[in-house]
Formats: sequence, structure tokens, C-alpha cells
Amino acid sequence: MNNKDSLSNEKKLDRRDFFRKTAALSATALAGTSIFADDDAIMKTPEWATKWGDPVTTNLYGVPSAYEHNVTRRSTELLSSGNFRASIAVTPIHESKGIITPNGLFFSRSHGGTAHIDPEEYRLMIHGLVEKPIVLTLAELKRYPSVTRIHFIECPANGGQEWRATQFNSVQFAKGFMASAEWTGVYVKTILEDLGIKPDAQWMLAEGGDSSKMGRTVPMDKVLDDAMIVWGQNGEALRPEQGYPVRLLLPGWEGNLCVKWLRRLEFAAEPWYCKEETSKYTALKPTGKAIQHFYANEVNSTVVSPSPEIPWTDLKDGAVVEIEGLAWSGMGTITGVDFSLDGGRTYVQAELKGLVLPKSWTRWSYMHTYKKGEKLLLTSRAMDDAGYIQPTIDEETSVMGVESVYHRNAVETWEVTENGEVNHVQIRS
Amino acid sequence: MNNKDSLSNEKKLDRRDFFRKTAALSATALAGTSIFADDDAIMKTPEWATKWGDPVTTNLYGVPSAYEHNVTRRSTELLSSGNFRASIAVTPIHESKGIITPNGLFFSRSHGGTAHIDPEEYRLMIHGLVEKPIVLTLAELKRYPSVTRIHFIECPANGGQEWRATQFNSVQFAKGFMASAEWTGVYVKTILEDLGIKPDAQWMLAEGGDSSKMGRTVPMDKVLDDAMIVWGQNGEALRPEQGYPVRLLLPGWEGNLCVKWLRRLEFAAEPWYCKEETSKYTALKPTGKAIQHFYANEVNSTVVSPSPEIPWTDLKDGAVVEIEGLAWSGMGTITGVDFSLDGGRTYVQAELKGLVLPKSWTRWSYMHTYKKGEKLLLTSRAMDDAGYIQPTIDEETSVMGVESVYHRNAVETWEVTENGEVNHVQIRS
Repeated sequence: MNNKDSLSNEKKLDRRDFFRKTAALSATALAGTSIFADDDAIMKTPEWATKWGDPVTTNLYGVPSAYEHNVTRRSTELLSSGNFRASIAVTPIHESKGIITPNGLFFSRSHGGTAHIDPEEYRLMIHGLVEKPIVLTLAELKRYPSVTRIHFIECPANGGQEWRATQFNSVQFAKGFMASAEWTGVYVKTILEDLGIKPDAQWMLAEGGDSSKMGRTVPMDKVLDDAMIVWGQNGEALRPEQGYPVRLLLPGWEGNLCVKWLRRLEFAAEPWYCKEETSKYTALKPTGKAIQHFYANEVNSTVVSPSPEIPWTDLKDGAVVEIEGLAWSGMGTITGVDFSLDGGRTYVQAELKGLVLPKSWTRWSYMHTYKKGEKLLLTSRAMDDAGYIQPTIDEETSVMGVESVYHRNAVETWEVTENGEVNHVQIRS
Repeated sequence: MNNKDSLSNEKKLDRRDFFRKTAALSATALAGTSIFADDDAIMKTPEWATKWGDPVTTNLYGVPSAYEHNVTRRSTELLSSGNFRASIAVTPIHESKGIITPNGLFFSRSHGGTAHIDPEEYRLMIHGLVEKPIVLTLAELKRYPSVTRIHFIECPANGGQEWRATQFNSVQFAKGFMASAEWTGVYVKTILEDLGIKPDAQWMLAEGGDSSKMGRTVPMDKVLDDAMIVWGQNGEALRPEQGYPVRLLLPGWEGNLCVKWLRRLEFAAEPWYCKEETSKYTALKPTGKAIQHFYANEVNSTVVSPSPEIPWTDLKDGAVVEIEGLAWSGMGTITGVDFSLDGGRTYVQAELKGLVLPKSWTRWSYMHTYKKGEKLLLTSRAMDDAGYIQPTIDEETSVMGVESVYHRNAVETWEVTENGEVNHVQIRS
């Protein structure tokens, strides 16, 4: 029981080293308010300190502060059909922190609106080229050994408007067709170990149970690698707009393939060529041929702060400020991010922050000393352990042309004007 | 642009190996429904497949499925004063997944209710034995370089009723005075590098800005190790009941020290001996002396499934079932979990699942083949890299007596009855 009496296991810093470092860094001091300033917020007793707060029973399922009412998903109905049931609500990535997106802010795309499925009536059918076709209840499905993994999901149309040089002056609309979460479910390969697959099974159809019955075909190599059937997101059940009670998760692959409200997996020797993998979610190249079997979201990155939503208009001259961004790759793990203040002419290395996991958001930053009136062009360029690096716009369009809507991963640039406003721009050579 | 055309970077399994394994494991088949069964849920078209779902604009900040209405925090008012403003709402850890607790379910304890603080009026004062005392706005505070870390917070009274052999027949009430999240903020040491601390500073007072003005004193070694001032939780702003806009986080240490609605840090040569570190949050030993400076939550664990809330009453004979639990230590990283089916007489090793991080929840599991009618006593025993291992009840009470309310970390036992019900029991030698 000696663990009750001692702090000896807490790592101790060398105090003298710390004080030496303190003296050296004091020049970086923030320009905070003097403690003796005549500041109303300091001098008066705030109202919340003078009365009881809310009881713990007020929200047994909690909600954000009312002061955060502006931090929400936003609908991109302007982009699409005008039908709010076949539209996208995008994530406020300029307000993101770390690599977890709260479920209330996770981007959502549907083709027939958000279905509300009764978990007692839910069934998952697994059939086709399997030894033992089966229909599982939700309780039966959850009885398989579970795994938990942190992964992003990205709509392949993230940034898609930029193929034709259109830009949103907003990082939420430009790059918020994605979010990241901790997912819990079962590997499809674990279920197949139980049911047995026939040797000629080469493709898996995943079909949704909502009114759109969205279907996509997945090659068997991915199924047997890391495909998951998930029921948990960030420690609770999936939300309705994420496919409650069950969706498919193909880590790193197009969000469209991660079929929501999953009702059926069928195995076969040939692909299905469903509507959403022929008329859409393909990429027309300048040759006139389209890329059809097109799955992984390639290595990508963006600055998130500053941004049009979080400008530097109130920054003082000489302020030390952290420029933050996200990097991600559906092919593997981020190995580095180059960062440029001059639109990609010269780069330095950004710092990777916190957990660096495969097929997951990776946060990066660069400390900058701001000069009032300076003009900057902030550009980032990520690379992954599969050996890929983000192309320039010219490199990407020289191969892909400008007719695609999907898989845009050219570098992004954010202009800082002399008064600290931030605009989305395109830099071409 | 060859990353557009190839899947060669996806890891491929050897198909022949997979089929061999499939054949070997088919005996573990789940007893799912036959695909041709006369099951209403299969045969009829469910109502949700026949109509449009909700538009994406319905909840721009999302909420859980209505079917999950039973997954909430629950108030422990029965335990405490009967005053819902100085009470605890505990986390449904039997429903937890992975190591992230969604913010809506994160346990909450307050001493004067939940304050609602205007972030524009919020100020943080840092003074005492520092070179440059300062008052920071929230925007100024957030301008320091941020860090993101996954840590649990645990009320030191978690399991406290068991010192006197009282037990809740519920894992939520027995062990749910804790939760885990991804936190974003700034290390206190980073701010002190900027402000400069005086060499005789040995203690830090943290004081809350709510009506209870809760104060606690923190030794300087912890301040300079990993103490954080946090404004982000799971990728968004702190919730009001977690101290919005800012709380102190002392990773691994008592939740009570992680002062919410933080308004003031003061540095001094001596500790303060505040109310909450003298009249409470101390531990009276059998000798009549109390442990006063008592900080880290020691190594601990519990089974979460099955539990009184998730019994095995519907399990079939021969079903393969995953027993899941959590382990955590405020002293470091979990290195292993022993698991027992006979109340701790004999142990085997459980599997650690997913991310294993310091001062973080660590999920563990054990695969069990259920025999209808069997009686079990499920006990877990965790160990950490600081060298500690959970004690038995007798070992713990022989040192600590039974007068404490805090720091209970003796092994927990969950009885499975012959009809699959689960009860919380205490096993003593």
C-alpha cells in the first residue's frame, strides 16, 4: 500500500533547468492585461459567482454552452440539388481541436435523408458466396469480439469545387466534408471467419436500409484487411445521421463507401456497378476515360487556423501565434507536413502534434511571430508512409483535368491580408 | 499522380491463409437466425425504408437516437446531501466503448451547481510568486501553444461506499464517478515560461469562479510536469458542467483538484489548506492520522460487461462472449490486467485492447464460452508501469481501515448467477 503515501513516481523536472529556461524565454511574453488595470471584468463580481448554478439533474445527457451556438454543422444546399435530404452538413473544422470530432458536429451526407431505425427491428443479412448465410439481430452482431480505432471519414467531394477554380471563402465549406472519430465495431473478416467465405468471392456489396438503399461494391482485399461494421462512435451509439444503429467503415476510403443504416452484405465473384459507382463517384480524365474503382482518399492537408472564420484582425504586432492545420491520408500514416508562408515557393517543416495514427487526422502546427501589416500566403503539403506527397494544383490538373468532382488533394493556400483578414486563394505556377 | 490508379499500398492478406483459418474457426459460429426463417423483421419492409428521412438541416448540432434515451448520466443524490447542486451525475460506463466518453455522458460533480460563464467576460488571473502577474482574456489564453492529450478524470470517491461494505448493484453507480476524454489546452509550465516564476514558489492555488469558489493547492512538481489549463474536450469547447470555458486538468490526479470555471492561479511558498483539502478529500487511517496531501488515483479496474445493467439472461449455452472491462492508473500506464472467473482464486491474462496511453482508460477483454447455468465470480486486477498492482479488499483495509471515503482501488467482483443475472459482491478472505 505504499502507493498511498508517495509521489515518488511522478516524473520530476529539474527546477534549476526550468528557471534558466524561464529567463531565456521571457521575451516572448504575451501582451496580457496588467493585473491592476481598470477592467470591468476584473473589478466587478460576475453574476454567475453570486448564485447557485444548475443542478446536476438539469441535462442528464449534456449539451454545449449557449455561448457556443455558432459552432454547428452547416448545410451545403447551395452546392447540390436544393433537396435537404440529399445534401451535406459540413463540420466546423476551424473550431476543431485534437483528432476527435464530437458526434454533434460530425459531417453528414445522405441520399434519402436521415432514417430512424428501431434497433429491436434491425436486421443485418450476410449472404451470397458464404458457407453459412445468416441474418443477425443487433444483439447478435454486437456479440462478436469488438475493436476500437480512430479514423477520419472524408467525402470524396471534399474540396471538389476547386477542380473548376471555384472557392468557398470558408475553411468549413472548403474542407469540412470530413471529420474524425473513435469507432467501435467488428472487423468484417472476424464475421467471415465465423461464416466461412467461398474461394470465388471477390467482391462485397454493402447496401443501406434507408429509403435510398445506397449500394457500393468493395473489393475483397479491403474487406479482409480492415473493413469494419461499426455501432459505436466516440464511446456511444452511432447517431441517426451516421447510420444508427450500424454502418460500414472502410478506413481511409471514400465516405460514400462507408454505407450507413447497413442492412445487407452480399459476396460475389463480380462487382455490382451500382448507381453510386457508375453515374457518380468516378473521375473523368482528360483522355475521356473515367477512373471507376476509385477508393482511397489520398494524402491531404489544410490550414484551419487562421482561416476566414478565425482571422488575425485583432493580433498585435510582435504577437507569437500558433498556425494550426490538419493532415490526413487514406493510404497510411502522415510522416510530415511542409509549411510555407509564401504560397509554396519555400517550405519549412511543421510540427506534428499529439497522436499520429494511420488513416487518422494528424494535427500540425507552426509558431509564427506576427508583424502588423505583413501579407502572407499560408500553404501546407503533407506526405504519408505510403510514399505519397500532395501535388501542386498544376501537377494534379495536368493528370486529372478539371472535369472531376472528387479526390481533390492539391495543396490549399490561405491568404493573410495586411489587415489580418484571411481569404482562400489558388496559387498556380 | 500514380496514387490515383493503384491499390498497391493497401496491405494484402494471403487469401489461402485466410481460408485455412476460416475452416479451423467455423466451430465458433454464432447461433444467428437462419436466412430463411419466418422472421417478421426480415419479411416485412420496415417503415423507415419507405419514406424520406430527415433533412440534413434538422439538427445542425446533432443529438442521439431517441431509442438511446436510457443511456444517460444518473444522479447520485441518494448518496449525498440531497442537494442537486452539490451532487454527482455518474457516467453509464456499462455502455462505454473505447476510451472516449462523449461529452454528453461525462460524469459531473459540482459544489455550487453548474455555472454559466460568458466567455467574453471571462478572465484568468495568475499572480503571487511570479515575475509578471497577469490577467488573461480567453482569447489571450488560447494564443499559447496548445497540446492535446487523452486522459481520464476520476472522482476520488469512486467506489467509496465500499469502504464500509455498501455496494450498488450497478456498475454505473459503483464505478461511474469517472470518464475519459481528449483534452486540449496549454501546459501551465508553458505559461510560467512566459511569466517567470520566483524560486521560492512551491505551491499553486487553483480557485474556481462559480459560487462555491472551490480551491485546491497543487505542489509545484506536478505543476511543472503535466498540469494543463484546458478549454477543449473531445474536439469542442468544454461543456458548462465541465467548467466552461476553462478548467484545470491534473492528469491522473483526483477530479476534485481539476478545478472547474477556473478564475485564479496563485503561487506561494506554502500550501493553502483550503476547505476541500482539510475537512474533505483526506483519508482517516486506523491510527487516527489522516493522509492529507493525497493526489493520484491509484491503479484500478472493473468489469463493465456483463454487469447488473447488461446481464447474460438471454445467452445461449455454448455462446462465445466477450467479457469487457476498463483499467486505469493515475500513476502511469497500464501494463496488464489479470482476470478471474472464480473471484480471484486463480487468474489468467486479459487482452489489452486498442490504444494504451498513460493516465488514460485502457480497455481489456477476455473471450469466454458460456455454459448455461454456470455460476461465476468475475474479478479483475490491473497493474501499471509505476510498479503498482491492485490490492485485495483485505490488503487495502488492513492498511487504510474503513473510515475513508476516498481512493478505493481494491479489486471488484461481479457475480454471474445460474440464470445469467449479474450482482456486485465483495469477496474477502
